[in-house]
Amino acid sequence: MTVKKGDFVELEFVGKIKETGEIFDTTDPKIAKDAGILKKNTVYRPLVVVVGKGQLIPGVDEALIGMKENEEKSIEVPPEKGFGKRDPKLVKLIPITELRKRGIKPKVGMRVTIDNAVGRIVNITGGRVRIDFNHPLAGKHLKLDLKVKKIIKDDKEKIKGIISMYYPNAKLEDINVEIKDGTVSIEVDDTFKFDNRPHSNITLTQARIAKEIWDNIEGVKRVEFISAFEKTKAKSTT
Amino acid sequence: MTVKKGDFVELEFVGKIKETGEIFDTTDPKIAKDAGILKKNTVYRPLVVVVGKGQLIPGVDEALIGMKENEEKSIEVPPEKGFGKRDPKLVKLIPITELRKRGIKPKVGMRVTIDNAVGRIVNITGGRVRIDFNHPLAGKHLKLDLKVKKIIKDDKEKIKGIISMYYPNAKLEDINVEIKDGTVSIEVDDTFKFDNRPHSNITLTQARIAKEIWDNIEGVKRVEFISAFEKTKAKSTT
Repeated sequence: MTVKKGDFVELEFVGKIKETGEIFDTTDPKIAKDAGILKKNTVYRPLVVVVGKGQLIPGVDEALIGMKENEEKSIEVPPEKGFGKRDPKLVKLIPITELRKRGIKPKVGMRVTIDNAVGRIVNITGGRVRIDFNHPLAGKHLKLDLKVKKIIKDDKEKIKGIISMYYPNAKLEDINVEIKDGTVSIEVDDTFKFDNRPHSNITLTQARIAKEIWDNIEGVKRVEFISAFEKTKAKSTT
Repeated sequence: MTVKKGDFVELEFVGKIKETGEIFDTTDPKIAKDAGILKKNTVYRPLVVVVGKGQLIPGVDEALIGMKENEEKSIEVPPEKGFGKRDPKLVKLIPITELRKRGIKPKVGMRVTIDNAVGRIVNITGGRVRIDFNHPLAGKHLKLDLKVKKIIKDDKEKIKGIISMYYPNAKLEDINVEIKDGTVSIEVDDTFKFDNRPHSNITLTQARIAKEIWDNIEGVKRVEFISAFEKTKAKSTT
Protein backbone atom coordinates (compact mmCIF):
# COMPACT_ATOMS: atom_id res chain seq x y z
CA MET A 1 0.00 0.00 0.00
CA THR A 2 1.54 3.27 -1.13
CA VAL A 3 0.65 6.90 -0.48
CA LYS A 4 -1.82 8.45 -2.96
CA LYS A 5 -3.12 11.98 -3.33
CA GLY A 6 -5.74 12.64 -0.65
CA ASP A 7 -4.30 10.07 1.75
CA PHE A 8 -3.87 10.99 5.39
CA VAL A 9 -0.38 10.21 6.60
CA GLU A 10 1.60 10.59 9.78
CA LEU A 11 4.78 12.27 8.67
CA GLU A 12 8.11 12.51 10.48
CA PHE A 13 10.66 14.88 9.05
CA VAL A 14 13.90 16.78 9.54
CA GLY A 15 14.26 19.90 7.40
CA LYS A 16 17.66 21.46 6.69
CA ILE A 17 18.96 24.35 4.66
CA LYS A 18 21.14 22.62 2.05
CA GLU A 19 23.86 25.26 1.97
CA THR A 20 24.53 25.43 5.69
CA GLY A 21 23.10 22.18 7.02
CA GLU A 22 21.14 24.26 9.52
CA ILE A 23 18.01 22.47 10.80
CA PHE A 24 14.97 24.75 10.49
CA ASP A 25 12.21 22.39 11.63
CA THR A 26 11.61 18.79 12.70
CA THR A 27 9.05 16.54 14.34
CA ASP A 28 11.76 14.93 16.48
CA PRO A 29 12.19 16.63 19.89
CA LYS A 30 15.69 15.23 20.39
CA ILE A 31 16.95 16.58 17.08
CA ALA A 32 15.17 19.89 17.75
CA LYS A 33 16.87 20.15 21.12
CA ASP A 34 20.31 19.38 19.73
CA ALA A 35 19.74 21.98 17.00
CA GLY A 36 18.67 24.58 19.58
CA ILE A 37 15.21 25.01 18.08
CA LEU A 38 13.13 23.07 20.62
CA LYS A 39 9.86 24.93 21.17
CA LYS A 40 8.50 25.13 24.68
CA ASN A 41 4.94 24.04 25.44
CA THR A 42 4.82 22.14 22.21
CA VAL A 43 3.79 18.54 21.76
CA TYR A 44 6.24 16.79 19.44
CA ARG A 45 4.57 14.03 17.45
CA PRO A 46 4.33 13.04 13.78
CA LEU A 47 2.52 15.64 11.71
CA VAL A 48 -0.81 14.54 10.25
CA VAL A 49 -1.20 15.80 6.69
CA VAL A 50 -3.50 15.23 3.75
CA VAL A 51 -1.12 14.52 0.87
CA GLY A 52 -1.30 16.53 -2.35
CA LYS A 53 -3.62 19.21 -1.00
CA GLY A 54 -1.12 22.04 -0.63
CA GLN A 55 -0.74 21.62 3.11
CA LEU A 56 2.98 21.04 2.56
CA ILE A 57 5.58 22.62 0.30
CA PRO A 58 5.15 21.18 -3.23
CA GLY A 59 8.46 19.27 -3.11
CA VAL A 60 7.34 17.27 -0.08
CA ASP A 61 3.77 16.82 -1.34
CA GLU A 62 5.19 15.24 -4.52
CA ALA A 63 7.83 13.14 -2.78
CA LEU A 64 5.28 11.46 -0.51
CA ILE A 65 3.25 10.05 -3.40
CA GLY A 66 4.14 6.38 -3.85
CA MET A 67 5.95 5.99 -0.52
CA LYS A 68 5.16 2.98 1.64
CA GLU A 69 4.37 2.89 5.33
CA ASN A 70 7.58 3.20 7.38
CA GLU A 71 9.57 4.09 4.25
CA GLU A 72 12.22 6.78 4.67
CA LYS A 73 13.41 9.11 1.94
CA SER A 74 15.84 11.99 1.71
CA ILE A 75 15.06 14.66 -0.85
CA GLU A 76 16.46 17.94 -2.08
CA VAL A 77 13.99 20.70 -2.79
CA PRO A 78 14.79 23.78 -4.89
CA PRO A 79 13.20 27.14 -3.89
CA GLU A 80 10.46 26.92 -6.52
CA LYS A 81 9.22 23.68 -4.92
CA GLY A 82 9.98 24.95 -1.44
CA PHE A 83 9.21 28.34 0.02
CA GLY A 84 9.49 30.19 -3.29
CA LYS A 85 12.17 32.39 -4.77
CA ARG A 86 13.24 35.55 -3.04
CA ASP A 87 11.37 38.61 -4.30
CA PRO A 88 13.57 41.73 -4.17
CA LYS A 89 10.43 43.88 -4.12
CA LEU A 90 9.63 42.45 -0.71
CA VAL A 91 12.68 44.17 0.76
CA LYS A 92 11.45 47.60 1.81
CA LEU A 93 12.95 50.80 3.15
CA ILE A 94 10.80 52.32 5.84
CA PRO A 95 11.50 55.58 7.73
CA ILE A 96 12.46 54.89 11.33
CA THR A 97 9.83 57.45 12.41
CA GLU A 98 7.14 55.27 10.82
CA LEU A 99 8.19 52.34 13.02
CA ARG A 100 8.38 54.50 16.15
CA LYS A 101 4.79 55.65 15.47
CA ARG A 102 3.80 51.99 15.69
CA GLY A 103 5.67 51.58 18.97
CA ILE A 104 8.53 49.59 17.42
CA LYS A 105 12.13 50.29 18.47
CA PRO A 106 13.99 48.79 15.52
CA LYS A 107 17.06 46.56 15.98
CA VAL A 108 18.88 44.57 13.35
CA GLY A 109 17.57 40.99 13.18
CA MET A 110 14.30 41.87 14.90
CA ARG A 111 11.08 40.39 13.49
CA VAL A 112 8.36 42.96 12.95
CA THR A 113 4.75 42.76 11.80
CA ILE A 114 3.57 45.64 9.67
CA ASP A 115 0.13 45.64 8.03
CA ASN A 116 -0.11 41.90 8.79
CA ALA A 117 3.14 41.12 6.97
CA VAL A 118 6.00 39.63 8.97
CA GLY A 119 9.48 40.86 8.14
CA ARG A 120 13.01 40.87 9.50
CA ILE A 121 15.06 44.03 9.98
CA VAL A 122 18.17 43.75 7.80
CA ASN A 123 19.87 47.04 8.56
CA ILE A 124 19.28 50.56 9.84
CA THR A 125 20.99 53.50 8.10
CA GLY A 126 20.37 57.23 7.95
CA GLY A 127 16.98 57.18 9.58
CA ARG A 128 15.75 54.37 7.37
CA VAL A 129 15.16 50.74 8.18
CA ARG A 130 15.54 47.98 5.61
CA ILE A 131 13.01 45.21 6.24
CA ASP A 132 12.91 41.89 4.38
CA PHE A 133 9.36 40.60 4.07
CA ASN A 134 10.38 37.44 2.18
CA HIS A 135 9.73 34.14 3.95
CA PRO A 136 12.95 33.34 5.89
CA LEU A 137 13.32 30.19 3.78
CA ALA A 138 12.53 31.85 0.44
CA GLY A 139 15.34 31.31 -2.07
CA LYS A 140 16.81 28.43 -0.07
CA HIS A 141 17.57 24.97 -1.36
CA LEU A 142 16.39 22.50 1.24
CA LYS A 143 17.24 18.96 2.26
CA LEU A 144 14.50 16.94 3.88
CA ASP A 145 14.55 13.54 5.54
CA LEU A 146 11.01 12.17 5.37
CA LYS A 147 9.42 9.14 6.96
CA VAL A 148 5.85 8.00 6.37
CA LYS A 149 5.15 6.77 9.88
CA LYS A 150 1.65 5.59 9.01
CA ILE A 151 -0.99 5.78 6.33
CA ILE A 152 -4.16 6.55 8.27
CA LYS A 153 -7.18 4.54 7.16
CA ASP A 154 -9.54 4.95 10.10
CA ASP A 155 -11.92 7.92 9.73
CA LYS A 156 -11.89 8.76 13.45
CA GLU A 157 -8.10 8.88 13.37
CA LYS A 158 -8.24 11.12 10.28
CA ILE A 159 -10.57 13.48 12.10
CA LYS A 160 -8.30 13.62 15.13
CA GLY A 161 -5.47 14.33 12.69
CA ILE A 162 -7.39 17.28 11.26
CA ILE A 163 -8.04 18.57 14.78
CA SER A 164 -4.31 18.36 15.49
CA MET A 165 -3.61 20.58 12.46
CA TYR A 166 -5.52 23.39 14.17
CA TYR A 167 -4.71 22.49 17.75
CA PRO A 168 -1.15 21.12 17.57
CA ASN A 169 -1.07 20.53 21.33
CA ALA A 170 -4.51 18.93 21.69
CA LYS A 171 -4.68 15.79 23.83
CA LEU A 172 -6.08 13.66 21.05
CA GLU A 173 -6.70 10.69 23.32
CA ASP A 174 -9.14 12.83 25.37
CA ILE A 175 -11.19 13.91 22.37
CA ASN A 176 -14.18 11.72 21.68
CA VAL A 177 -15.13 11.36 18.01
CA GLU A 178 -18.29 9.62 16.80
CA ILE A 179 -19.48 9.18 13.22
CA LYS A 180 -23.09 8.31 12.47
CA ASP A 181 -25.28 8.85 9.40
CA GLY A 182 -22.95 11.44 7.90
CA THR A 183 -22.67 13.41 11.13
CA VAL A 184 -19.33 13.71 12.89
CA SER A 185 -19.61 14.54 16.61
CA ILE A 186 -16.51 15.81 18.31
CA GLU A 187 -16.60 16.05 22.09
CA VAL A 188 -13.92 18.47 23.16
CA ASP A 189 -11.88 18.21 26.33
CA ASP A 190 -11.03 20.82 28.94
CA THR A 191 -8.10 22.24 26.96
CA PHE A 192 -10.67 23.51 24.49
CA LYS A 193 -13.19 24.57 27.12
CA PHE A 194 -10.78 26.98 28.77
CA ASP A 195 -9.31 28.53 25.66
CA ASN A 196 -9.17 32.28 26.30
CA ARG A 197 -9.50 33.46 22.72
CA PRO A 198 -12.75 35.16 21.77
CA HIS A 199 -15.50 32.60 21.28
CA SER A 200 -16.10 33.87 17.73
CA ASN A 201 -12.50 32.87 16.83
CA ILE A 202 -13.15 29.37 18.17
CA THR A 203 -16.26 29.20 15.98
CA LEU A 204 -14.22 30.15 12.91
CA THR A 205 -11.60 27.52 13.74
CA GLN A 206 -14.37 24.96 14.19
CA ALA A 207 -15.84 25.96 10.81
CA ARG A 208 -12.42 25.39 9.20
CA ILE A 209 -12.02 22.01 10.87
CA ALA A 210 -15.54 21.08 9.71
CA LYS A 211 -14.73 22.06 6.11
CA GLU A 212 -11.45 20.14 6.23
CA ILE A 213 -13.37 17.09 7.43
CA TRP A 214 -16.09 17.05 4.75
CA ASP A 215 -13.64 18.01 2.03
CA ASN A 216 -11.40 15.03 2.86
CA ILE A 217 -13.65 12.36 4.32
CA GLU A 218 -16.29 10.75 2.14
CA GLY A 219 -19.93 11.06 3.17
CA VAL A 220 -19.66 13.66 5.94
CA LYS A 221 -22.45 16.24 5.77
CA ARG A 222 -22.47 17.72 9.24
CA VAL A 223 -19.88 18.32 11.95
CA GLU A 224 -20.84 18.97 15.57
CA PHE A 225 -18.61 20.23 18.34
CA ILE A 226 -19.91 19.19 21.74
CA SER A 227 -19.03 20.78 25.03
CA ALA A 228 -20.47 18.50 27.71
CA PHE A 229 -21.04 18.89 31.44
CA GLU A 230 -21.76 15.95 33.74
CA LYS A 231 -23.73 16.32 36.96
CA THR A 232 -21.21 14.72 39.31
CA LYS A 233 -18.15 16.35 37.79
CA ALA A 234 -19.67 19.81 37.99
CA LYS A 235 -20.60 19.34 41.64
CA SER A 236 -17.04 18.67 42.63
CA THR A 237 -15.89 21.98 41.19
CA THR A 238 -18.53 24.20 42.79
CA MET B 1 -53.17 24.33 39.17
CA THR B 2 -51.29 26.80 41.36
CA VAL B 3 -47.65 27.82 41.57
CA LYS B 4 -45.49 25.74 43.93
CA LYS B 5 -41.88 26.09 45.00
CA GLY B 6 -39.60 24.84 42.18
CA ASP B 7 -42.16 25.59 39.46
CA PHE B 8 -41.02 27.35 36.32
CA VAL B 9 -43.20 30.34 35.53
CA GLU B 10 -43.35 33.04 32.93
CA LEU B 11 -43.65 36.22 34.97
CA GLU B 12 -44.76 39.68 33.86
CA PHE B 13 -44.21 42.51 36.25
CA VAL B 14 -44.08 46.25 36.85
CA GLY B 15 -41.89 47.33 39.78
CA LYS B 16 -42.32 50.76 41.40
CA ILE B 17 -40.80 52.59 44.32
CA LYS B 18 -43.76 52.99 46.70
CA GLU B 19 -42.84 56.46 47.92
CA THR B 20 -42.44 58.13 44.54
CA GLY B 21 -44.32 55.82 42.17
CA GLU B 22 -41.17 55.72 40.02
CA ILE B 23 -41.01 52.61 37.83
CA PHE B 24 -37.61 50.92 38.23
CA ASP B 25 -38.11 47.81 36.06
CA THR B 26 -40.74 46.02 33.98
CA THR B 27 -41.16 43.26 31.41
CA ASP B 28 -43.52 45.48 29.38
CA PRO B 29 -41.73 47.50 26.69
CA LYS B 30 -44.58 50.02 26.40
CA ILE B 31 -44.55 50.79 30.12
CA ALA B 32 -40.72 50.90 30.07
CA LYS B 33 -40.82 53.40 27.22
CA ASP B 34 -43.37 55.63 28.91
CA ALA B 35 -41.28 55.55 32.09
CA GLY B 36 -38.13 56.48 30.15
CA ILE B 37 -36.30 53.27 31.12
CA LEU B 38 -36.56 51.32 27.85
CA LYS B 39 -33.28 49.50 27.29
CA LYS B 40 -31.90 49.36 23.77
CA ASN B 41 -30.96 46.04 22.15
CA THR B 42 -33.04 44.23 24.71
CA VAL B 43 -35.72 41.65 24.01
CA TYR B 44 -38.77 42.35 26.15
CA ARG B 45 -40.66 39.18 27.03
CA PRO B 46 -41.95 37.55 30.21
CA LEU B 47 -39.18 36.59 32.60
CA VAL B 48 -38.73 32.86 33.14
CA VAL B 49 -38.02 32.11 36.80
CA VAL B 50 -37.83 29.10 39.06
CA VAL B 51 -40.03 30.03 42.01
CA GLY B 52 -38.73 29.89 45.58
CA LYS B 53 -35.08 29.46 44.60
CA GLY B 54 -33.82 32.93 45.43
CA GLN B 55 -33.78 34.08 41.83
CA LEU B 56 -36.19 36.86 42.81
CA ILE B 57 -36.43 39.18 45.79
CA PRO B 58 -38.01 37.22 48.70
CA GLY B 59 -41.23 39.26 48.61
CA VAL B 60 -41.95 38.24 45.02
CA ASP B 61 -40.80 34.64 45.51
CA GLU B 62 -43.33 34.32 48.36
CA ALA B 63 -46.15 36.12 46.56
CA LEU B 64 -45.99 33.81 43.54
CA ILE B 65 -46.67 30.66 45.59
CA GLY B 66 -50.30 29.66 45.19
CA MET B 67 -51.02 31.96 42.23
CA LYS B 68 -52.88 30.55 39.23
CA GLU B 69 -51.97 30.84 35.57
CA ASN B 70 -52.99 34.27 34.25
CA GLU B 71 -53.67 35.53 37.75
CA GLU B 72 -52.58 39.09 38.52
CA LYS B 73 -51.61 40.40 41.94
CA SER B 74 -50.34 43.70 43.31
CA ILE B 75 -48.08 43.50 46.32
CA GLU B 76 -46.12 45.79 48.60
CA VAL B 77 -42.66 44.70 49.61
CA PRO B 78 -40.74 46.18 52.57
CA PRO B 79 -36.94 46.57 52.24
CA GLU B 80 -36.18 43.42 54.24
CA LYS B 81 -38.11 41.36 51.64
CA GLY B 82 -36.85 43.51 48.80
CA PHE B 83 -33.33 44.73 48.20
CA GLY B 84 -32.38 44.89 51.89
CA LYS B 85 -32.05 47.74 54.35
CA ARG B 86 -29.58 50.53 53.74
CA ASP B 87 -26.25 49.92 55.44
CA PRO B 88 -24.63 53.22 56.51
CA LYS B 89 -21.23 51.46 56.51
CA LEU B 90 -21.53 51.07 52.74
CA VAL B 91 -21.34 54.85 52.33
CA LYS B 92 -17.63 55.58 52.05
CA LEU B 93 -15.41 58.64 51.90
CA ILE B 94 -12.62 58.22 49.39
CA PRO B 95 -9.86 60.77 48.60
CA ILE B 96 -10.37 62.29 45.16
CA THR B 97 -6.71 61.44 44.38
CA GLU B 98 -7.52 57.75 44.85
CA LEU B 99 -10.20 57.96 42.14
CA ARG B 100 -7.95 59.92 39.79
CA LYS B 101 -5.31 57.19 40.15
CA ARG B 102 -7.92 54.79 38.79
CA GLY B 103 -8.66 57.13 35.89
CA ILE B 104 -12.02 58.28 37.30
CA LYS B 105 -13.03 61.95 37.10
CA PRO B 106 -15.70 62.04 39.80
CA LYS B 107 -19.04 63.83 39.27
CA VAL B 108 -22.07 63.79 41.54
CA GLY B 109 -24.53 61.08 40.48
CA MET B 110 -21.90 59.12 38.57
CA ARG B 111 -21.79 55.32 38.98
CA VAL B 112 -18.34 53.97 39.74
CA THR B 113 -16.92 50.47 40.16
CA ILE B 114 -14.20 50.14 42.77
CA ASP B 115 -12.78 46.74 43.74
CA ASN B 116 -15.75 45.12 41.96
CA ALA B 117 -18.30 47.05 44.05
CA VAL B 118 -20.66 49.40 42.22
CA GLY B 119 -21.45 52.69 43.92
CA ARG B 120 -22.97 56.08 43.22
CA ILE B 121 -21.19 59.36 43.95
CA VAL B 122 -23.31 61.29 46.46
CA ASN B 123 -21.18 64.41 46.89
CA ILE B 124 -17.67 65.81 46.57
CA THR B 125 -16.26 68.04 49.32
CA GLY B 126 -12.77 69.11 50.37
CA GLY B 127 -10.90 66.66 48.22
CA ARG B 128 -13.06 63.76 49.32
CA VAL B 129 -15.76 61.89 47.47
CA ARG B 130 -18.72 60.30 49.23
CA ILE B 131 -19.76 57.09 47.47
CA ASP B 132 -22.84 55.05 48.33
CA PHE B 133 -22.25 51.35 47.69
CA ASN B 134 -25.76 50.32 48.78
CA HIS B 135 -28.02 48.79 46.13
CA PRO B 136 -29.96 51.72 44.59
CA LEU B 137 -33.19 50.09 45.81
CA ALA B 138 -31.90 49.24 49.30
CA GLY B 139 -34.11 50.74 51.99
CA LYS B 140 -36.99 51.27 49.56
CA HIS B 141 -40.53 50.04 50.00
CA LEU B 142 -41.66 48.65 46.66
CA LYS B 143 -44.96 48.10 44.89
CA LEU B 144 -45.11 45.30 42.34
CA ASP B 145 -47.79 44.30 39.88
CA LEU B 146 -47.26 40.62 39.08
CA LYS B 147 -48.86 38.35 36.51
CA VAL B 148 -48.18 34.63 36.19
CA LYS B 149 -48.36 34.43 32.41
CA LYS B 150 -47.81 30.70 32.34
CA ILE B 151 -46.76 27.77 34.51
CA ILE B 152 -44.24 25.92 32.34
CA LYS B 153 -44.64 22.15 32.37
CA ASP B 154 -42.68 21.10 29.30
CA ASP B 155 -39.03 20.29 30.06
CA LYS B 156 -37.74 21.68 26.75
CA GLU B 157 -39.52 24.96 27.47
CA LYS B 158 -38.03 24.99 30.97
CA ILE B 159 -34.56 24.53 29.49
CA LYS B 160 -35.09 27.36 27.03
CA GLY B 161 -36.26 29.44 29.97
CA ILE B 162 -33.01 28.70 31.82
CA ILE B 163 -31.01 29.66 28.72
CA SER B 164 -32.92 32.96 28.59
CA MET B 165 -31.83 33.71 32.18
CA TYR B 166 -28.21 33.77 30.98
CA TYR B 167 -28.83 35.03 27.46
CA PRO B 168 -31.77 37.43 27.87
CA ASN B 169 -31.72 38.27 24.16
CA ALA B 170 -31.35 34.70 22.82
CA LYS B 171 -33.64 33.76 19.94
CA LEU B 172 -35.20 30.86 21.79
CA GLU B 173 -37.09 29.63 18.71
CA ASP B 174 -33.74 29.04 16.95
CA ILE B 175 -32.27 26.95 19.76
CA ASN B 176 -32.80 23.23 19.34
CA VAL B 177 -33.22 21.27 22.59
CA GLU B 178 -33.35 17.48 22.77
CA ILE B 179 -33.70 15.31 25.86
CA LYS B 180 -32.81 11.63 25.76
CA ASP B 181 -31.74 9.15 28.47
CA GLY B 182 -30.89 11.88 30.97
CA THR B 183 -28.85 13.88 28.46
CA VAL B 184 -29.95 17.34 27.41
CA SER B 185 -28.53 18.46 24.05
CA ILE B 186 -28.69 22.14 23.27
CA GLU B 187 -27.83 23.18 19.74
CA VAL B 188 -26.91 26.83 19.80
CA ASP B 189 -27.63 29.32 17.04
CA ASP B 190 -25.37 31.87 15.39
CA THR B 191 -25.90 34.47 18.12
CA PHE B 192 -23.96 32.16 20.39
CA LYS B 193 -21.40 31.19 17.79
CA PHE B 194 -20.26 34.74 17.23
CA ASP B 195 -20.14 35.86 20.84
CA ASN B 196 -16.91 37.82 21.24
CA ARG B 197 -16.28 37.10 24.90
CA PRO B 198 -13.37 34.80 25.75
CA HIS B 199 -14.32 31.19 25.10
CA SER B 200 -13.51 30.29 28.72
CA ASN B 201 -16.26 32.70 29.87
CA ILE B 202 -18.72 30.96 27.57
CA THR B 203 -17.70 27.64 29.10
CA LEU B 204 -18.36 28.98 32.60
CA THR B 205 -21.78 30.29 31.53
CA GLN B 206 -22.53 26.89 29.97
CA ALA B 207 -21.48 25.18 33.21
CA ARG B 208 -23.91 27.43 35.14
CA ILE B 209 -26.74 26.71 32.70
CA ALA B 210 -25.99 22.98 33.00
CA LYS B 211 -26.12 23.13 36.81
CA GLU B 212 -29.35 25.14 36.72
CA ILE B 213 -30.83 22.45 34.45
CA TRP B 214 -29.96 19.38 36.53
CA ASP B 215 -30.77 21.18 39.79
CA ASN B 216 -34.27 22.01 38.56
CA ILE B 217 -35.23 19.29 36.11
CA GLU B 218 -35.67 15.74 37.32
CA GLY B 219 -33.44 13.03 35.84
CA VAL B 220 -30.92 15.16 33.95
CA LYS B 221 -27.36 13.87 34.34
CA ARG B 222 -25.56 15.45 31.44
CA VAL B 223 -25.89 18.65 29.44
CA GLU B 224 -24.28 19.08 26.02
CA PHE B 225 -23.87 22.29 24.08
CA ILE B 226 -23.58 21.63 20.38
CA SER B 227 -22.11 23.96 17.81
CA ALA B 228 -22.93 22.45 14.41
CA PHE B 229 -21.71 23.11 10.88
CA GLU B 230 -23.50 21.82 7.78
CA LYS B 231 -21.68 21.15 4.53
CA THR B 232 -23.92 23.24 2.24
CA LYS B 233 -24.22 26.16 4.62
CA ALA B 234 -20.49 26.44 5.14
CA LYS B 235 -19.85 26.38 1.39
CA SER B 236 -21.99 29.44 0.86
CA THR B 237 -19.91 31.46 3.31
CA THR B 238 -16.46 30.62 1.98
